[in-house]
Amino acid sequence: MVEFGDMVDHFGFTLMKTFKQRYLISDKHWRKDGGSILFYTGNEGDIVWFCNNTGFMWDVAEELKAMLVFAEHRYYGESLPFGASSFKDSRHLNFLTSEQALADFAELIKHLKRTIPGAENQPVIALGGSYGGMLAAWFRMKYPHVVVGALAASAPIWQFEDLVPCEAFMKIVTTDFWKSSPGCPESIRRSWGAINRLSTAKGGLQWLTETLRLCDPLTSSDIRRLKDWISETWVNLAMVDYPYASDFLQPLPAWPIQVVCQYLKDPNVSDSLLLQNIFQALNVYYNYSGQAKCLNISETTTSNLGSLGWSYQACTEIVMPFCTNGIDDMFEPHLWNLKEFSDDCFKQWGVRPRPSWITTMYGGKNISSHSNIVFSNGELDPWSGGGVTKDITDTLVAITISEGAHHLDLRANNDFSYSGIFATVALPVRNLAFFCSISLCFQAWTAERC
Amino acid sequence: MVEFGDMVDHFGFTLMKTFKQRYLISDKHWRKDGGSILFYTGNEGDIVWFCNNTGFMWDVAEELKAMLVFAEHRYYGESLPFGASSFKDSRHLNFLTSEQALADFAELIKHLKRTIPGAENQPVIALGGSYGGMLAAWFRMKYPHVVVGALAASAPIWQFEDLVPCEAFMKIVTTDFWKSSPGCPESIRRSWGAINRLSTAKGGLQWLTETLRLCDPLTSSDIRRLKDWISETWVNLAMVDYPYASDFLQPLPAWPIQVVCQYLKDPNVSDSLLLQNIFQALNVYYNYSGQAKCLNISETTTSNLGSLGWSYQACTEIVMPFCTNGIDDMFEPHLWNLKEFSDDCFKQWGVRPRPSWITTMYGGKNISSHSNIVFSNGELDPWSGGGVTKDITDTLVAITISEGAHHLDLRANNDFSYSGIFATVALPVRNLAFFCSISLCFQAWTAERC
Repeated sequence: MVEFGDMVDHFGFTLMKTFKQRYLISDKHWRKDGGSILFYTGNEGDIVWFCNNTGFMWDVAEELKAMLVFAEHRYYGESLPFGASSFKDSRHLNFLTSEQALADFAELIKHLKRTIPGAENQPVIALGGSYGGMLAAWFRMKYPHVVVGALAASAPIWQFEDLVPCEAFMKIVTTDFWKSSPGCPESIRRSWGAINRLSTAKGGLQWLTETLRLCDPLTSSDIRRLKDWISETWVNLAMVDYPYASDFLQPLPAWPIQVVCQYLKDPNVSDSLLLQNIFQALNVYYNYSGQAKCLNISETTTSNLGSLGWSYQACTEIVMPFCTNGIDDMFEPHLWNLKEFSDDCFKQWGVRPRPSWITTMYGGKNISSHSNIVFSNGELDPWSGGGVTKDITDTLVAITISEGAHHLDLRANNDFSYSGIFATVALPVRNLAFFCSISLCFQAWTAERC
Repeated sequence: MVEFGDMVDHFGFTLMKTFKQRYLISDKHWRKDGGSILFYTGNEGDIVWFCNNTGFMWDVAEELKAMLVFAEHRYYGESLPFGASSFKDSRHLNFLTSEQALADFAELIKHLKRTIPGAENQPVIALGGSYGGMLAAWFRMKYPHVVVGALAASAPIWQFEDLVPCEAFMKIVTTDFWKSSPGCPESIRRSWGAINRLSTAKGGLQWLTETLRLCDPLTSSDIRRLKDWISETWVNLAMVDYPYASDFLQPLPAWPIQVVCQYLKDPNVSDSLLLQNIFQALNVYYNYSGQAKCLNISETTTSNLGSLGWSYQACTEIVMPFCTNGIDDMFEPHLWNLKEFSDDCFKQWGVRPRPSWITTMYGGKNISSHSNIVFSNGELDPWSGGGVTKDITDTLVAITISEGAHHLDLRANNDFSYSGIFATVALPVRNLAFFCSISLCFQAWTAERC
């Protein structure tokens, strides 16, 4: 675990201040002769947590003789430009952008090459998942002189403006549940009305509080939040619907949606029975360990993710339109309302989103002049709706992982993923063009040297 | 002449302020059907002046059915983000960077495509000269989704760090004078000592003031400035050593260095005669019109260039190391001293340069993964020392214009340039690969359609 003093503002010269950017480094398998550097472009959370959930890099390090570097994204984990004041106000948050983060990565790589004997002339490959995958792709696009290629895993680089339909995400979530049993999404679809009815019935709020084992008593003003919390739970389940027991956002069994949907097979039940079933389903996500005494509607995920920072990023650059119609998906209908979103952002952070900036900056769908990026997406992953799932050119290739959820592409090798996922990534030589074209050849991914 | 409201800070969200960016537009030759857009990436000066000195674009507009757009660079001309306060202090200047300027260009092109019917799907080509040429190249590198290619004319993109020897620039200046007559640079080389001797002799300062027809009496503390002013004059002459009478930095005859060197053929003369000759030479540059009553050592060039803004840029991002040794060049020996330079910058602007940032950002010599950039350089141009003068790949091509000075590549067609320069640009089909490869074909530059 090391730190590097990087500029807080790469794009202006008034603020002559550096901050300590944390990064993790492993040279266990690294060889100065013929080796390479795999560089994880950290995303919105603690880099140690990402490191522990990116087994893929460890799996391939030996075969690639690779040094591994995991760089923490500014404003997350311990890489706080203004320490405890970093989230104080919009002035302190002003340097939380993807452009600044990419510049950090570029400076860090320069620093490593300058200071680690033997690293200077080695090729660097960027890897990242989710927002980190977007950063990996963007890093290759903007700094092709720094990284020879990128693996952009589960990276929804097109979840912006109208590049993809705003319904796509929630439709995939719904399909994931539908695959377990058609009754499952139907139960969820009906649950919203059931909650509405129960919450306005006499004693209904108390009944809901008890039935859902909520930590705090519901009031009528909490109903919106309750439904959002439940929705987010289904979304999270779709993201981590892994084929083996795991602990990414929460400790979960293998194929958790199947487990959840066991309780929701039959939508044709009374409101009260439906909500009791919903509780059983939620309980799989929030209490698989059996340790939880109650469910807290303020929490949906691991605290390793930096929700404050992400909320700011979503309110500025990373403006992702989502919507539901309740017909193609199992959620309450909700339009994408930029005005409302912008007003909420202004209230919370004193800033307003610029929804078209990312497209201006990174090109939207017009990226064919770039090269050497592999976009991998899990078929089950709702984020694949905003991802690149078809080859764009010979060197901008898409890999779809059937039965794969979010971030599975970067998780450690295991029995399932070895036969199912890893092999998908490993075998087709075509997908390796981007490594080979830079006169690099990774034995791990193909038996033949380039 | 039009204005566009662009963000003052593209890379942060706290400052929710726009400014009026000026641009010039001509659709005289533009066709909606099969046309294109030529976009001048404005540099450090008034855009009207650049427009008037970029006849090349006008010359080719008809054949390309092209719309012409000249975009003014922020902080120059009338495009002042904070109006009269724009240069007040480093906080107001904080948004004067190449990255912000490129983002302005990208937003402006989006705006034009959105608002001009017929423009939306037309290819845009970036063109620029000098710093504007650097911007054109960088624009294609960073925003290849916005421009299909770039003509980077007289663009010293490698005049940074140690990418080229710091002596290169002044060596070329010296060679330009040497070509007229070997005695000419020798006279200049000897003039520095002559000035030093005369300035310390009794009555010497007054003699120099009179002999050089200076507007203000010299004091001994002005001698450094005097010599810098004279040096800069020789540099400027090398830049504008055009084959025809012109008025770019100053009104000048054709091949002005030949005219200047007529007075400096013989270096073996007394100090006082040498300085009288130097005056005659300077007078060619400063008083070709015969209107000047005296010479002002505070001025070397047209006021159309924004010297304040450029000084700030040189003190932050655009850190170009220059040096002389007095042997390979005709100047007093001067090492490149970053520390001293940085201290001067801090004194003047309250900022310090980051000399390696441009290389981090734009790749230095490692740019081969980009495409569709033509780098044109004049053989006589001292800036060619920091330019790309050899092909890098099939689509990153270099064109050297023999007998060409700075910015000549973008000047209007004329008898000389047609047979000499324009044809060099026009004829070899190989150089057109970058247009053709985007399925565009410019009849003007080749008889054959792609």
